[in-house]
Amino acid sequence: MTSSAAREPRPPAEVVSLTTDYGLADGFVAACHGVIARLAPALRVIDVTHLVPPGDVRRGAAVLAQTVPHLPPGVHVAVVDPGVGTSRRGVALGTPEGLLVGPDNGLLLDAAAALGGVTGAVELTNPRWLAPRVSATFHGRDVFAPVAARLALGAPLTDAGPAVDPATLVRLPEPLVRRVPDGFVAEVLTVDHFGNVQLAAPAELLDPLPARVRVCPATEPTAPGADEDAPAGVGGWEREAVHGRTFGDAPVGALVAHVDSTGRVALSVNGGHAAELLAVDPGTLLRVRGYGVVGDAPGQHG
Amino acid sequence: MTSSAAREPRPPAEVVSLTTDYGLADGFVAACHGVIARLAPALRVIDVTHLVPPGDVRRGAAVLAQTVPHLPPGVHVAVVDPGVGTSRRGVALGTPEGLLVGPDNGLLLDAAAALGGVTGAVELTNPRWLAPRVSATFHGRDVFAPVAARLALGAPLTDAGPAVDPATLVRLPEPLVRRVPDGFVAEVLTVDHFGNVQLAAPAELLDPLPARVRVCPATEPTAPGADEDAPAGVGGWEREAVHGRTFGDAPVGALVAHVDSTGRVALSVNGGHAAELLAVDPGTLLRVRGYGVVGDAPGQHG
Amino acid sequence: MTSSAAREPRPPAEVVSLTTDYGLADGFVAACHGVIARLAPALRVIDVTHLVPPGDVRRGAAVLAQTVPHLPPGVHVAVVDPGVGTSRRGVALGTPEGLLVGPDNGLLLDAAAALGGVTGAVELTNPRWLAPRVSATFHGRDVFAPVAARLALGAPLTDAGPAVDPATLVRLPEPLVRRVPDGFVAEVLTVDHFGNVQLAAPAELLDPLPARVRVCPATEPTAPGADEDAPAGVGGWEREAVHGRTFGDAPVGALVAHVDSTGRVALSVNGGHAAELLAVDPGTLLRVRGYGVVGDAPGQHG
Repeated sequence: MTSSAAREPRPPAEVVSLTTDYGLADGFVAACHGVIARLAPALRVIDVTHLVPPGDVRRGAAVLAQTVPHLPPGVHVAVVDPGVGTSRRGVALGTPEGLLVGPDNGLLLDAAAALGGVTGAVELTNPRWLAPRVSATFHGRDVFAPVAARLALGAPLTDAGPAVDPATLVRLPEPLVRRVPDGFVAEVLTVDHFGNVQLAAPAELLDPLPARVRVCPATEPTAPGADEDAPAGVGGWEREAVHGRTFGDAPVGALVAHVDSTGRVALSVNGGHAAELLAVDPGTLLRVRGYGVVGDAPGQHG
Repeated sequence: MTSSAAREPRPPAEVVSLTTDYGLADGFVAACHGVIARLAPALRVIDVTHLVPPGDVRRGAAVLAQTVPHLPPGVHVAVVDPGVGTSRRGVALGTPEGLLVGPDNGLLLDAAAALGGVTGAVELTNPRWLAPRVSATFHGRDVFAPVAARLALGAPLTDAGPAVDPATLVRLPEPLVRRVPDGFVAEVLTVDHFGNVQLAAPAELLDPLPARVRVCPATEPTAPGADEDAPAGVGGWEREAVHGRTFGDAPVGALVAHVDSTGRVALSVNGGHAAELLAVDPGTLLRVRGYGVVGDAPGQHG
Repeated sequence: MTSSAAREPRPPAEVVSLTTDYGLADGFVAACHGVIARLAPALRVIDVTHLVPPGDVRRGAAVLAQTVPHLPPGVHVAVVDPGVGTSRRGVALGTPEGLLVGPDNGLLLDAAAALGGVTGAVELTNPRWLAPRVSATFHGRDVFAPVAARLALGAPLTDAGPAVDPATLVRLPEPLVRRVPDGFVAEVLTVDHFGNVQLAAPAELLDPLPARVRVCPATEPTAPGADEDAPAGVGGWEREAVHGRTFGDAPVGALVAHVDSTGRVALSVNGGHAAELLAVDPGTLLRVRGYGVVGDAPGQHG
């Protein structure tokens, strides 16, 4: 990991991006912008979101990973940091397509993978890069923003602190996705502003399914008592969905299963809110199966 | 519409503005910023709002039209697009004071009128201007943002795709406004963050009314059974309002009818929330009439 | 106040910041950005917050004062202005570390103190600096934004209008803080997005207290019937808190009293929402006292 690349000076970054759970009602985000602007007045800063639910590291990781591929090469700061001020490390990660800065709690690693994988990592302990007096509760302002500004100006990653073995970085559990005989089981990864339910499943699990599918809750296939071949869901409900390309492929108010703009399977309601209709949240397991592929009488096909 | 102006190169725009219903909790807005920043790194981007209620094209149209006159000349992107991915067209419109980019669903036309009227229109079909792979559900990122960046850099409008006859652009119904003997009837156009109730009526309908007015619900004057001369409202309530210049012209908690900062009639409560007090929403019809002008006994004048 | 400094040309500012109660759903903020961008196209604008509760001047003053020290030298516009359009003055204040622009209702003075104190003040009456037609209800767009842009470009403060005696500026009441025998009584100053309860008390009032403290409601010590030496709170509840450095110094769900990132005493819940737990709001008086310092039996020490 202490590759020579990490020590070489880089060209200045085009942008710094910010992803936090700070909300928009206080001055926290502006303080981070201010710290960056003082150090790097000409740098563009793009706000990814500041409405990650407080402390929800998984949600922050998902939004960050899905957005960074569309940003210019730069330094991406993320702060969802319930352990701020404790012994958890602050880190900066190098990738082929940009740098990531934030707490070592799993928040950054999906984004690092989306940018080509971790090529170097350091712990942010260089006191000359931090605020003169680092508060115990606001490392966005006192640690991550000034480090990001310095990296964006082209300072070498290894000047930020000592190398960290990437294998020691804290990782979140992988979301569950698995193929089952008539379709797949997958965890709900995110619910967006419109209520679209994004599953952790990639497009290739939906593509082979027929024009109509069924959706039902599922149990963890490895949980005690789980029956992965059970024809009906565990939650007592099962809904039919159109297998389409976009919301308008289903009638208004109807459910559509499609591949979303990130390449993942999603469930949406045309003109409605799928997460409310299905009463699901991130982490809920759902089974999506072809209508009639297994266990249906022919007359039931849609 | 295929005026020579549309084909001539233009000077680079000073800004791109963004108006959407994307919300602020996901990375959608940042992805649009990122696409623009990759193509036009020096361009200023101004967010108008991303909190248009999901799918509310009328609300998006009103916010956009009321804001663009105050922005520098530029390219204004708006995306409130329940028909994304269906056969609805994506368009760019030329006006004397800027360009508008978004879906052809009526969202852009009030803003076009505010900028001097449509002088040219094209359908956004040039594949070299779009994302390499256009998703079915995120045309803000894959169609409208890259088109806006290219137009902002000075590319000719007609390079974005074939000309569209402006007469074929989808239009929203005009909000209802009509003069009645003792005042006017008008539709609620917007309710803002403070609860101010903006009517579609222009200032000149309020100006001649006396220092106190009465407000009541109204029926569509052309609806069956509507009686446009009925002295009282149809909803069973009638409220008195001060005809003033600003909130403070009425006592705290009292209703004031005034001309708002866009030149339209508005109803506000000093220190309160007029839309909650009146229980009205966009689309509600209200009658505003002079106190005592018609049908009042002299002793009732305020 | 009419110091020579106020008349001298200044170098251009690096930023304009905006703090308002305009919300994010309308185009009000964008209109201010647009006015600034038209006058000063290269100027960076930083949004502090636009979610000050409508008309809450105290909250606006607190956010502004706590954020401006972290912004680059510049012109800070704040608009929480229930008296817009009435006889209240619009003012610009000079300080050693930046300029402040907004209504004369107390909103700016804590920030002025944080920037080194008021060195000059003017009333914003120069019509050539304002919008051609100033609305009665949107001085952010028509008065404060254009004045800020001109000041940011380096125009002298005194060109904005006639000098104002700083002693005549409207002031908010000081929040209550007082030392009591076993600790201190202080007003809740703000509640942030995470539910952290910030007290008006400075760090030096918490520092001498032991490793565990007790928190209870208090009455204004000068109120009739108030007993400042009462061993228990007036509200019927008393809670124990860890006296720590950061959230993680208390177990998950437990209360911690610490010095926050602004140097004030704050009460937080590790992984929770302290303001909800304690049922307090800005303005609530709390007593924080050392556990066992006064009036406790030895066996009760935590």
